[in-house]
Amino acid sequence: METTAKQTKPQVVSPAELLEHWQGHRRVTRRTIEAFPEDAFFNHSIGGMRPFYKMVMELLAIAEPGLREITGDKPESFDEEFKHEKNKEYFLKLWDDATEAINTLWEKLKPEQFQENITLFGQYEGTVYSQISYFIDNEIHHRAQGYVYLRSLGIEPPLFYMRD
Amino acid sequence: METTAKQTKPQVVSPAELLEHWQGHRRVTRRTIEAFPEDAFFNHSIGGMRPFYKMVMELLAIAEPGLREITGDKPESFDEEFKHEKNKEYFLKLWDDATEAINTLWEKLKPEQFQENITLFGQYEGTVYSQISYFIDNEIHHRAQGYVYLRSLGIEPPLFYMRD
Repeated sequence: METTAKQTKPQVVSPAELLEHWQGHRRVTRRTIEAFPEDAFFNHSIGGMRPFYKMVMELLAIAEPGLREITGDKPESFDEEFKHEKNKEYFLKLWDDATEAINTLWEKLKPEQFQENITLFGQYEGTVYSQISYFIDNEIHHRAQGYVYLRSLGIEPPLFYMRD
Repeated sequence: METTAKQTKPQVVSPAELLEHWQGHRRVTRRTIEAFPEDAFFNHSIGGMRPFYKMVMELLAIAEPGLREITGDKPESFDEEFKHEKNKEYFLKLWDDATEAINTLWEKLKPEQFQENITLFGQYEGTVYSQISYFIDNEIHHRAQGYVYLRSLGIEPPLFYMRD
């Protein structure tokens, strides 16, 4: 049975602001990829952690496919080991394609969906809001590890607070 | 003039969920502090970056004072160089005190405030939502740098997705 009850509480954040928040972070991550020397992007590592390109592959495997599952009606598979070329230009192109796809998919997202529960990639349960928050938080987390990689190479990372 | 117009849009996230999201991250950061050996917390560094305790001082200088300014009526100063003892137990106590204070201050936060603009610490402008988001994002960012410090010391960091 469909409920027609209206919530009267003011918005904490609007869907448009949440998208802008996400894309703002994605712009910082793009600049972080750009800041890496070609070789270090694929090979530099600290303490046995993954090189930064592997983290970027994880982020790419989550963002667009995750939002596609949220806004679509069929399950997506999580594939962070996708076929790729080993050059930064290739990754920046994937990044930009995902940026466009996210903007397009977002238009299909209905305001009432954010509090609905969904299972993503066959295993991760939570509200749509919590899923998207996780995408963003996880990106901030891995990008910050990229910042340490850059610092260890003597390279100044992009400004964290600059989201344009 | 007070407006009595009611918004009818469904919530993307409720104030209670946003608090839980923040405190969940703060629990992970607490476990990150705990994971550091006493000496490394104050001295370990990569690429000329601050030791982790300095980042924690920044986080402590932002969270409770920032929320106090949001929920109060007087300006707060940003002081990340406060007097402190150089032992982890002392910092964990400050962390726990801030956890309690945040929960108490949050009760004063009105739902309609999240979209209001505020200037914090005399210089940072934005909506209350964007300010609190920044507190959380900045904490994720610096904690992730602490994760790399831990890995470089051969120590397994806390699970990122475990927020209990």
